[in-house]
Amino acid sequence: MVVIYGIHAVSEALKSGGRSFEYVGIARERHDQRMQRLIDDCRASGVQVRFLLREQLDRTANTNTHQGVIAVTTGKQYADVDTLLENRHGEYSFLLVLDSVEDPHNLGALIRTADGAGADGAIIPERRAAGLTGTAVKASAGASEHLPIARVTNISRTLDELKERNVWTVGLDERGTQSYDEIDYNMHCAIVLGAEGKGLHDLVRRRCDFLVSIPMTGAVPSLNVSVAGGIVMYELARQRRAKKGASD
Amino acid sequence: MVVIYGIHAVSEALKSGGRSFEYVGIARERHDQRMQRLIDDCRASGVQVRFLLREQLDRTANTNTHQGVIAVTTGKQYADVDTLLENRHGEYSFLLVLDSVEDPHNLGALIRTADGAGADGAIIPERRAAGLTGTAVKASAGASEHLPIARVTNISRTLDELKERNVWTVGLDERGTQSYDEIDYNMHCAIVLGAEGKGLHDLVRRRCDFLVSIPMTGAVPSLNVSVAGGIVMYELARQRRAKKGASD
Repeated sequence: MVVIYGIHAVSEALKSGGRSFEYVGIARERHDQRMQRLIDDCRASGVQVRFLLREQLDRTANTNTHQGVIAVTTGKQYADVDTLLENRHGEYSFLLVLDSVEDPHNLGALIRTADGAGADGAIIPERRAAGLTGTAVKASAGASEHLPIARVTNISRTLDELKERNVWTVGLDERGTQSYDEIDYNMHCAIVLGAEGKGLHDLVRRRCDFLVSIPMTGAVPSLNVSVAGGIVMYELARQRRAKKGASD
Repeated sequence: MVVIYGIHAVSEALKSGGRSFEYVGIARERHDQRMQRLIDDCRASGVQVRFLLREQLDRTANTNTHQGVIAVTTGKQYADVDTLLENRHGEYSFLLVLDSVEDPHNLGALIRTADGAGADGAIIPERRAAGLTGTAVKASAGASEHLPIARVTNISRTLDELKERNVWTVGLDERGTQSYDEIDYNMHCAIVLGAEGKGLHDLVRRRCDFLVSIPMTGAVPSLNVSVAGGIVMYELARQRRAKKGASD
Protein backbone atom coordinates (compact mmCIF):
# COMPACT_ATOMS: atom_id res chain seq x y z
CA MET A 1 0.00 0.00 0.00
CA VAL A 2 1.06 3.62 -0.55
CA VAL A 3 -0.02 6.85 1.10
CA ILE A 4 -1.29 9.78 -0.96
CA TYR A 5 -2.37 13.09 0.53
CA GLY A 6 -3.84 16.51 -0.19
CA ILE A 7 -7.46 17.32 -1.02
CA HIS A 8 -7.15 17.34 -4.82
CA ALA A 9 -4.92 14.27 -4.88
CA VAL A 10 -7.26 12.13 -2.77
CA SER A 11 -10.42 13.41 -4.40
CA GLU A 12 -9.13 12.80 -7.96
CA ALA A 13 -7.94 9.34 -6.94
CA LEU A 14 -11.49 8.58 -5.75
CA LYS A 15 -13.04 9.95 -8.95
CA SER A 16 -10.71 8.12 -11.32
CA GLY A 17 -11.37 4.72 -9.76
CA GLY A 18 -7.79 3.71 -10.56
CA ARG A 19 -6.84 2.56 -7.04
CA SER A 20 -8.23 0.35 -4.30
CA PHE A 21 -8.52 2.20 -0.98
CA GLU A 22 -7.80 0.76 2.43
CA TYR A 23 -9.18 3.94 3.99
CA VAL A 24 -9.26 7.73 3.76
CA GLY A 25 -8.05 9.54 6.89
CA ILE A 26 -9.39 13.00 7.70
CA ALA A 27 -8.25 15.43 10.38
CA ARG A 28 -10.79 15.50 13.23
CA GLU A 29 -10.66 19.27 13.41
CA ARG A 30 -11.46 19.87 9.75
CA HIS A 31 -15.12 20.56 9.07
CA ASP A 32 -15.81 22.47 5.91
CA GLN A 33 -17.74 22.05 2.70
CA ARG A 34 -14.88 20.65 0.63
CA MET A 35 -14.13 18.07 3.28
CA GLN A 36 -17.81 17.13 3.51
CA ARG A 37 -17.91 16.63 -0.26
CA LEU A 38 -14.90 14.34 0.02
CA ILE A 39 -16.54 12.34 2.80
CA ASP A 40 -19.69 12.02 0.68
CA ASP A 41 -17.57 10.81 -2.27
CA CYS A 42 -15.92 8.22 -0.04
CA ARG A 43 -19.27 6.92 1.17
CA ALA A 44 -20.64 6.81 -2.38
CA SER A 45 -17.63 4.71 -3.42
CA GLY A 46 -17.81 2.47 -0.34
CA VAL A 47 -14.46 3.72 0.97
CA GLN A 48 -13.96 3.69 4.73
CA VAL A 49 -13.39 7.11 6.35
CA ARG A 50 -11.38 7.43 9.58
CA PHE A 51 -11.26 10.63 11.59
CA LEU A 52 -7.73 10.97 12.92
CA LEU A 53 -5.61 13.29 15.00
CA ARG A 54 -3.38 15.61 13.01
CA GLU A 55 -0.32 13.86 14.47
CA GLN A 56 -1.56 10.52 13.17
CA LEU A 57 -1.94 12.03 9.69
CA ASP A 58 1.54 13.59 9.90
CA ARG A 59 3.03 10.25 10.87
CA THR A 60 1.22 8.20 8.22
CA ALA A 61 1.91 10.68 5.40
CA ASN A 62 5.41 11.40 6.71
CA THR A 63 4.81 15.12 6.07
CA ASN A 64 2.61 17.87 7.49
CA THR A 65 1.56 19.17 4.06
CA HIS A 66 -1.43 16.81 3.77
CA GLN A 67 -4.10 19.54 4.21
CA GLY A 68 -5.92 17.26 6.66
CA VAL A 69 -6.54 14.41 4.18
CA ILE A 70 -4.63 11.22 3.47
CA ALA A 71 -5.51 7.95 1.76
CA VAL A 72 -3.94 4.53 2.12
CA THR A 73 -4.31 2.90 -1.29
CA THR A 74 -2.82 0.49 -3.79
CA GLY A 75 -0.16 1.96 -6.10
CA LYS A 76 -0.99 3.64 -9.41
CA GLN A 77 -1.82 1.19 -12.21
CA TYR A 78 0.71 1.85 -14.95
CA ALA A 79 -0.17 1.59 -18.63
CA ASP A 80 2.09 0.27 -21.38
CA VAL A 81 3.38 2.43 -24.21
CA ASP A 82 1.14 0.80 -26.83
CA THR A 83 -1.94 1.65 -24.78
CA LEU A 84 -0.87 5.30 -24.66
CA LEU A 85 -0.62 5.29 -28.46
CA GLU A 86 -3.94 3.48 -28.97
CA ASN A 87 -5.85 5.84 -26.71
CA ARG A 88 -4.93 9.03 -28.48
CA HIS A 89 -7.41 11.92 -28.16
CA GLY A 90 -6.71 13.92 -31.27
CA GLU A 91 -5.56 13.50 -34.83
CA TYR A 92 -1.94 13.05 -33.71
CA SER A 93 -0.33 11.36 -30.71
CA PHE A 94 1.04 13.60 -27.97
CA LEU A 95 3.26 11.95 -25.38
CA LEU A 96 5.48 13.37 -22.65
CA VAL A 97 8.70 11.44 -21.99
CA LEU A 98 10.64 12.23 -18.81
CA ASP A 99 14.27 11.14 -18.82
CA SER A 100 15.16 11.15 -15.10
CA VAL A 101 13.38 14.15 -13.60
CA GLU A 102 14.53 13.99 -9.98
CA ASP A 103 12.27 16.29 -7.99
CA PRO A 104 8.78 14.89 -7.26
CA HIS A 105 7.36 18.46 -7.35
CA ASN A 106 8.59 18.83 -10.91
CA LEU A 107 7.30 15.37 -11.84
CA GLY A 108 3.88 16.29 -10.42
CA ALA A 109 3.75 19.70 -12.11
CA LEU A 110 4.73 18.15 -15.47
CA ILE A 111 2.00 15.50 -15.22
CA ARG A 112 -0.52 18.21 -14.30
CA THR A 113 0.52 20.29 -17.33
CA ALA A 114 0.49 17.26 -19.65
CA ASP A 115 -3.09 16.56 -18.54
CA GLY A 116 -4.04 20.21 -19.13
CA ALA A 117 -2.38 20.46 -22.53
CA GLY A 118 -4.11 17.31 -23.77
CA ALA A 119 -1.32 14.74 -23.75
CA ASP A 120 -2.32 11.12 -24.30
CA GLY A 121 0.03 10.02 -21.53
CA ALA A 122 3.46 10.24 -19.96
CA ILE A 123 6.41 7.86 -19.95
CA ILE A 124 8.76 7.76 -16.96
CA PRO A 125 11.76 5.55 -16.20
CA GLU A 126 11.53 2.84 -13.55
CA ARG A 127 14.78 3.81 -11.87
CA ARG A 128 17.07 6.78 -11.16
CA ALA A 129 14.21 9.29 -11.28
CA ALA A 130 11.41 10.60 -9.10
CA GLY A 131 8.57 8.08 -8.77
CA LEU A 132 4.87 8.71 -8.27
CA THR A 133 5.17 9.29 -4.53
CA GLY A 134 2.57 11.07 -2.42
CA THR A 135 4.49 14.31 -3.01
CA ALA A 136 4.33 13.90 -6.80
CA VAL A 137 0.64 12.98 -6.75
CA LYS A 138 -0.13 16.07 -4.65
CA ALA A 139 2.00 18.34 -6.88
CA SER A 140 0.04 17.03 -9.86
CA ALA A 141 -3.19 18.19 -8.12
CA GLY A 142 -4.45 14.68 -8.75
CA ALA A 143 -3.80 14.74 -12.53
CA SER A 144 -1.61 11.66 -12.05
CA GLU A 145 -4.80 9.74 -11.25
CA HIS A 146 -6.26 10.46 -14.69
CA LEU A 147 -3.33 10.70 -17.10
CA PRO A 148 -2.16 7.27 -18.31
CA ILE A 149 1.47 6.77 -17.30
CA ALA A 150 3.87 4.10 -18.53
CA ARG A 151 7.02 3.10 -16.64
CA VAL A 152 9.83 1.74 -18.79
CA THR A 153 13.23 0.23 -18.00
CA ASN A 154 15.13 2.08 -20.72
CA ILE A 155 14.13 5.46 -22.13
CA SER A 156 16.46 5.27 -25.17
CA ARG A 157 14.99 1.95 -26.21
CA THR A 158 11.48 3.36 -25.77
CA LEU A 159 12.38 6.25 -28.09
CA ASP A 160 13.43 3.69 -30.72
CA GLU A 161 10.09 1.91 -30.31
CA LEU A 162 8.21 5.19 -30.64
CA LYS A 163 10.06 5.98 -33.86
CA GLU A 164 9.14 2.56 -35.28
CA ARG A 165 5.52 3.54 -34.60
CA ASN A 166 5.94 6.82 -36.55
CA VAL A 167 6.12 9.04 -33.49
CA TRP A 168 8.64 11.89 -33.87
CA THR A 169 10.73 12.63 -30.79
CA VAL A 170 11.37 16.25 -29.84
CA GLY A 171 14.04 16.66 -27.15
CA LEU A 172 14.34 19.86 -25.17
CA ASP A 173 18.01 20.68 -24.67
CA GLU A 174 19.97 23.87 -24.05
CA ARG A 175 22.20 22.87 -26.97
CA GLY A 176 19.23 22.53 -29.33
CA THR A 177 19.82 24.66 -32.42
CA GLN A 178 16.16 25.17 -33.29
CA SER A 179 13.81 27.22 -31.19
CA TYR A 180 10.94 25.16 -29.72
CA ASP A 181 8.40 27.21 -31.73
CA GLU A 182 10.05 26.53 -35.10
CA ILE A 183 8.84 22.92 -35.17
CA ASP A 184 5.49 21.98 -36.71
CA TYR A 185 3.87 19.82 -34.03
CA ASN A 186 1.13 18.62 -36.35
CA MET A 187 2.60 15.12 -36.43
CA HIS A 188 2.61 12.22 -33.95
CA CYS A 189 5.11 13.38 -31.39
CA ALA A 190 6.72 12.87 -28.01
CA ILE A 191 8.24 15.75 -26.05
CA VAL A 192 11.37 14.49 -24.25
CA LEU A 193 12.66 16.30 -21.14
CA GLY A 194 15.83 15.65 -19.13
CA ALA A 195 16.89 16.00 -15.52
CA GLU A 196 16.97 19.30 -13.64
CA GLY A 197 20.22 21.12 -14.35
CA LYS A 198 21.69 18.28 -16.42
CA GLY A 199 19.36 18.01 -19.39
CA LEU A 200 19.08 14.91 -21.54
CA HIS A 201 21.44 11.97 -21.23
CA ASP A 202 23.75 11.63 -24.25
CA LEU A 203 22.18 8.37 -25.37
CA VAL A 204 18.71 9.88 -25.22
CA ARG A 205 19.71 13.14 -26.87
CA ARG A 206 21.25 11.34 -29.84
CA ARG A 207 18.02 9.46 -30.45
CA CYS A 208 15.82 12.55 -30.69
CA ASP A 209 14.62 13.52 -34.18
CA PHE A 210 14.58 17.21 -33.21
CA LEU A 211 16.52 19.04 -30.51
CA VAL A 212 14.89 22.30 -29.55
CA SER A 213 15.77 24.99 -27.05
CA ILE A 214 13.85 27.83 -25.43
CA PRO A 215 15.28 31.30 -26.22
CA MET A 216 16.80 32.78 -23.05
CA THR A 217 17.23 36.52 -23.21
CA GLY A 218 18.27 37.30 -19.64
CA ALA A 219 21.14 36.56 -17.29
CA VAL A 220 20.22 32.99 -16.31
CA PRO A 221 20.77 30.30 -18.97
CA SER A 222 17.86 27.92 -18.30
CA LEU A 223 14.34 27.57 -16.89
CA ASN A 224 12.95 25.29 -14.24
CA VAL A 225 12.17 21.96 -16.00
CA SER A 226 8.45 22.05 -15.19
CA VAL A 227 8.12 25.58 -16.60
CA ALA A 228 10.17 24.66 -19.70
CA GLY A 229 8.04 21.55 -20.26
CA GLY A 230 4.87 23.63 -19.89
CA ILE A 231 6.03 26.12 -22.53
CA VAL A 232 6.78 23.40 -25.09
CA MET A 233 3.63 21.33 -24.39
CA TYR A 234 1.42 24.39 -24.70
CA GLU A 235 3.12 25.46 -27.93
CA LEU A 236 2.25 22.04 -29.32
CA ALA A 237 -1.36 22.46 -28.12
CA ARG A 238 -1.55 26.01 -29.53
CA GLN A 239 -0.37 24.91 -32.98
CA ARG A 240 -2.79 22.00 -33.09
CA ARG A 241 -5.70 24.25 -32.01
CA ALA A 242 -4.70 26.83 -34.64
CA LYS A 243 -4.60 24.18 -37.38
CA LYS A 244 -7.89 22.67 -36.29
CA GLY A 245 -9.47 26.15 -36.22
CA ALA A 246 -8.22 26.84 -39.74
CA SER A 247 -9.56 23.55 -41.16
CA ASP A 248 -12.95 23.57 -39.34
CA MET B 1 21.39 41.60 6.69
CA VAL B 2 19.77 38.66 4.94
CA VAL B 3 21.04 35.19 4.10
CA ILE B 4 20.95 33.85 0.56
CA TYR B 5 22.16 30.41 -0.45
CA GLY B 6 22.74 28.01 -3.31
CA ILE B 7 25.53 28.15 -5.88
CA HIS B 8 23.64 29.99 -8.63
CA ALA B 9 22.00 32.40 -6.20
CA VAL B 10 25.25 33.46 -4.54
CA SER B 11 27.24 33.54 -7.75
CA GLU B 12 24.64 35.70 -9.59
CA ALA B 13 24.45 38.04 -6.59
CA LEU B 14 28.22 38.50 -6.81
CA LYS B 15 28.09 39.10 -10.57
CA SER B 16 25.22 41.58 -10.46
CA GLY B 17 26.90 43.79 -7.84
CA GLY B 18 23.46 44.62 -6.43
CA ARG B 19 24.24 43.74 -2.82
CA SER B 20 26.92 44.43 -0.22
CA PHE B 21 28.38 41.24 1.23
CA GLU B 22 29.34 40.68 4.84
CA TYR B 23 30.85 37.33 3.85
CA VAL B 24 30.37 34.21 1.74
CA GLY B 25 30.37 30.95 3.71
CA ILE B 26 31.50 27.74 2.03
CA ALA B 27 31.32 24.17 3.31
CA ARG B 28 34.81 22.98 4.34
CA GLU B 29 34.31 19.64 2.67
CA ARG B 30 33.39 21.06 -0.74
CA HIS B 31 36.31 21.25 -3.14
CA ASP B 32 35.35 21.28 -6.77
CA GLN B 33 35.77 23.47 -9.80
CA ARG B 34 32.49 25.36 -9.44
CA MET B 35 33.27 26.17 -5.84
CA GLN B 36 36.78 27.28 -6.76
CA ARG B 37 35.34 29.62 -9.41
CA LEU B 38 33.02 31.08 -6.78
CA ILE B 39 35.93 31.59 -4.37
CA ASP B 40 37.90 33.31 -7.14
CA ASP B 41 34.89 35.56 -7.87
CA CYS B 42 34.66 36.49 -4.19
CA ARG B 43 38.35 37.40 -4.07
CA ALA B 44 38.08 39.43 -7.27
CA SER B 45 35.20 41.40 -5.73
CA GLY B 46 36.94 41.80 -2.36
CA VAL B 47 34.34 39.67 -0.58
CA GLN B 48 35.49 37.76 2.49
CA VAL B 49 35.25 33.94 2.26
CA ARG B 50 34.78 31.82 5.39
CA PHE B 51 35.14 28.05 5.37
CA LEU B 52 32.48 26.67 7.70
CA LEU B 53 31.16 23.37 9.00
CA ARG B 54 28.03 22.12 7.30
CA GLU B 55 26.12 22.52 10.58
CA GLN B 56 27.08 26.19 10.73
CA LEU B 57 25.77 26.67 7.19
CA ASP B 58 22.54 24.82 8.04
CA ARG B 59 22.03 27.02 11.08
CA THR B 60 22.77 30.32 9.34
CA ALA B 61 20.67 29.53 6.26
CA ASN B 62 17.99 27.83 8.38
CA THR B 63 17.80 25.05 5.79
CA ASN B 64 20.05 22.25 4.55
CA THR B 65 19.38 22.95 0.87
CA HIS B 66 22.22 25.47 0.54
CA GLN B 67 24.48 23.25 -1.63
CA GLY B 68 27.42 24.19 0.59
CA VAL B 69 27.27 27.95 -0.12
CA ILE B 70 25.65 30.81 1.76
CA ALA B 71 26.11 34.58 1.73
CA VAL B 72 25.27 37.13 4.38
CA THR B 73 24.36 40.28 2.45
CA THR B 74 22.25 43.42 2.39
CA GLY B 75 18.71 43.00 1.04
CA LYS B 76 17.82 43.31 -2.64
CA GLN B 77 17.70 46.91 -3.90
CA TYR B 78 14.19 47.42 -5.20
CA ALA B 79 13.45 49.60 -8.22
CA ASP B 80 10.41 51.83 -8.70
CA VAL B 81 7.79 51.22 -11.36
CA ASP B 82 8.89 54.19 -13.47
CA THR B 83 12.41 52.82 -13.66
CA LEU B 84 11.06 49.50 -14.93
CA LEU B 85 9.23 51.38 -17.69
CA GLU B 86 12.19 53.58 -18.59
CA ASN B 87 14.59 50.64 -18.86
CA ARG B 88 12.62 48.70 -21.43
CA HIS B 89 14.61 46.38 -23.68
CA GLY B 90 12.42 46.13 -26.72
CA GLU B 91 9.93 48.14 -28.71
CA TYR B 92 7.21 47.53 -26.10
CA SER B 93 7.25 47.29 -22.31
CA PHE B 94 6.93 43.82 -20.77
CA LEU B 95 6.24 43.67 -17.04
CA LEU B 96 5.24 40.82 -14.76
CA VAL B 97 2.87 41.76 -11.92
CA LEU B 98 2.39 39.26 -9.10
CA ASP B 99 -0.75 39.77 -7.01
CA SER B 100 0.04 37.78 -3.84
CA VAL B 101 1.90 34.68 -4.95
CA GLU B 102 2.42 32.86 -1.66
CA ASP B 103 5.01 30.17 -2.26
CA PRO B 104 8.62 31.41 -2.50
CA HIS B 105 9.43 28.58 -4.96
CA ASN B 106 6.76 29.90 -7.32
CA LEU B 107 7.95 33.48 -6.83
CA GLY B 108 11.50 32.41 -7.67
CA ALA B 109 10.49 30.33 -10.70
CA LEU B 110 8.38 33.22 -12.06
CA ILE B 111 11.26 35.69 -11.70
CA ARG B 112 13.57 33.21 -13.43
CA THR B 113 11.10 32.83 -16.31
CA ALA B 114 10.51 36.60 -16.56
CA ASP B 115 14.27 37.06 -16.90
CA GLY B 116 14.44 34.35 -19.57
CA ALA B 117 11.46 35.64 -21.57
CA GLY B 118 12.89 39.16 -21.65
CA ALA B 119 10.68 41.02 -19.16
CA ASP B 120 11.81 44.53 -18.18
CA GLY B 121 11.01 43.79 -14.55
CA ALA B 122 8.59 42.41 -12.01
CA ILE B 123 6.23 44.09 -9.55
CA ILE B 124 5.40 42.39 -6.27
CA PRO B 125 3.30 43.53 -3.29
CA GLU B 126 4.96 44.57 -0.04
CA ARG B 127 2.64 42.51 2.11
CA ARG B 128 0.56 39.32 2.16
CA ALA B 129 2.75 37.60 -0.41
CA ALA B 130 6.02 35.71 -0.62
CA GLY B 131 9.00 38.05 -0.33
CA LEU B 132 12.45 37.70 -1.82
CA THR B 133 13.70 35.29 0.82
CA GLY B 134 16.71 33.03 0.43
CA THR B 135 14.34 30.31 -0.82
CA ALA B 136 12.93 32.57 -3.55
CA VAL B 137 16.38 33.79 -4.62
CA LYS B 138 17.58 30.18 -4.90
CA ALA B 139 14.44 29.09 -6.80
CA SER B 140 15.11 31.94 -9.24
CA ALA B 141 18.59 30.46 -9.90
CA GLY B 142 19.89 33.95 -9.15
CA ALA B 143 17.69 35.70 -11.75
CA SER B 144 16.31 37.84 -8.89
CA GLU B 145 19.75 39.47 -8.70
CA HIS B 146 19.52 40.74 -12.29
CA LEU B 147 15.83 41.40 -12.98
CA PRO B 148 14.68 44.81 -11.68
CA ILE B 149 11.92 44.29 -9.12
CA ALA B 150 9.56 46.92 -7.69
CA ARG B 151 7.67 46.44 -4.43
CA VAL B 152 4.40 48.34 -4.16
CA THR B 153 1.86 48.82 -1.38
CA ASN B 154 -1.21 48.37 -3.54
CA ILE B 155 -1.33 46.30 -6.72
CA SER B 156 -4.70 47.71 -7.93
CA ARG B 157 -3.40 51.27 -7.69
CA THR B 158 -0.25 50.23 -9.55
CA LEU B 159 -2.39 48.81 -12.36
CA ASP B 160 -4.14 52.19 -12.62
CA GLU B 161 -0.76 53.91 -12.84
CA LEU B 162 0.39 51.49 -15.53
CA LYS B 163 -2.74 52.19 -17.56
CA GLU B 164 -2.09 55.94 -17.33
CA ARG B 165 1.31 55.20 -18.86
CA ASN B 166 -0.29 53.31 -21.77
CA VAL B 167 0.57 49.87 -20.50
CA TRP B 168 -2.18 47.31 -21.13
CA THR B 169 -2.85 44.90 -18.29
CA VAL B 170 -3.45 41.24 -19.11
CA GLY B 171 -4.74 39.23 -16.15
CA LEU B 172 -4.56 35.45 -16.13
CA ASP B 173 -7.76 34.05 -14.62
CA GLU B 174 -9.64 30.77 -14.91
CA ARG B 175 -12.76 32.82 -15.66
CA GLY B 176 -11.07 34.65 -18.54
CA THR B 177 -13.15 34.27 -21.67
CA GLN B 178 -10.30 34.74 -24.14
CA SER B 179 -7.56 32.21 -24.59
CA TYR B 180 -4.11 33.61 -23.67
CA ASP B 181 -2.94 33.14 -27.28
CA GLU B 182 -5.76 35.20 -28.78
CA ILE B 183 -4.26 38.49 -27.54
CA ASP B 184 -1.81 40.47 -29.67
CA TYR B 185 1.05 41.16 -27.26
CA ASN B 186 2.67 43.69 -29.57
CA MET B 187 1.75 46.56 -27.24
CA HIS B 188 3.14 47.79 -23.93
CA CYS B 189 1.85 45.22 -21.51
CA ALA B 190 1.90 43.78 -18.03
CA ILE B 191 1.02 40.14 -17.33
CA VAL B 192 -0.86 39.95 -14.02
CA LEU B 193 -0.92 36.69 -12.03
CA GLY B 194 -2.82 35.86 -8.83
CA ALA B 195 -2.29 33.63 -5.85
CA GLU B 196 -1.97 29.85 -6.03
CA GLY B 197 -5.42 28.24 -6.09
CA LYS B 198 -7.26 31.54 -5.60
CA GLY B 199 -6.40 33.54 -8.72
CA LEU B 200 -6.67 37.31 -8.91
CA HIS B 201 -8.31 39.39 -6.18
CA ASP B 202 -11.64 40.90 -7.32
CA LEU B 203 -10.29 44.46 -7.22
CA VAL B 204 -7.29 43.49 -9.31
CA ARG B 205 -9.28 41.40 -11.76
CA ARG B 206 -11.71 44.24 -12.45
CA ARG B 207 -8.85 46.56 -13.35
CA CYS B 208 -7.35 44.29 -16.01
CA ASP B 209 -7.88 45.34 -19.63
CA PHE B 210 -7.87 41.71 -20.76
CA LEU B 211 -8.69 38.57 -18.82
CA VAL B 212 -7.22 35.50 -20.41
CA SER B 213 -7.27 31.82 -19.51
CA ILE B 214 -5.22 28.81 -20.53
CA PRO B 215 -7.25 26.06 -22.26
CA MET B 216 -7.45 23.01 -19.97
CA THR B 217 -8.35 19.83 -21.78
CA GLY B 218 -7.87 17.25 -19.03
CA ALA B 219 -9.36 16.37 -15.67
CA VAL B 220 -7.68 19.04 -13.54
CA PRO B 221 -8.98 22.62 -13.97
CA SER B 222 -5.79 24.67 -13.51
CA LEU B 223 -2.01 24.69 -13.76
CA ASN B 224 0.67 25.48 -11.20
CA VAL B 225 1.01 29.30 -11.19
CA SER B 226 4.67 29.31 -12.22
CA VAL B 227 3.95 27.01 -15.18
CA ALA B 228 0.91 29.11 -16.19
CA GLY B 229 2.95 32.31 -15.96
CA GLY B 230 5.70 30.73 -18.07
CA ILE B 231 3.24 29.76 -20.80
CA VAL B 232 1.82 33.29 -21.07
CA MET B 233 5.18 35.10 -20.84
CA TYR B 234 6.67 32.90 -23.54
CA GLU B 235 3.62 33.37 -25.79
CA LEU B 236 4.25 37.13 -25.51
CA ALA B 237 7.93 36.59 -26.35
CA ARG B 238 7.07 34.27 -29.24
CA GLN B 239 4.68 36.80 -30.81
CA ARG B 240 7.16 39.63 -30.47
CA ARG B 241 9.96 37.52 -32.01
CA ALA B 242 7.62 36.50 -34.86
CA LYS B 243 6.69 40.13 -35.57
CA LYS B 244 10.29 41.29 -35.40
CA GLY B 245 11.32 38.44 -37.74
CA ALA B 246 8.60 39.44 -40.20
CA SER B 247 9.63 43.13 -40.23
CA ASP B 248 13.41 42.56 -40.31
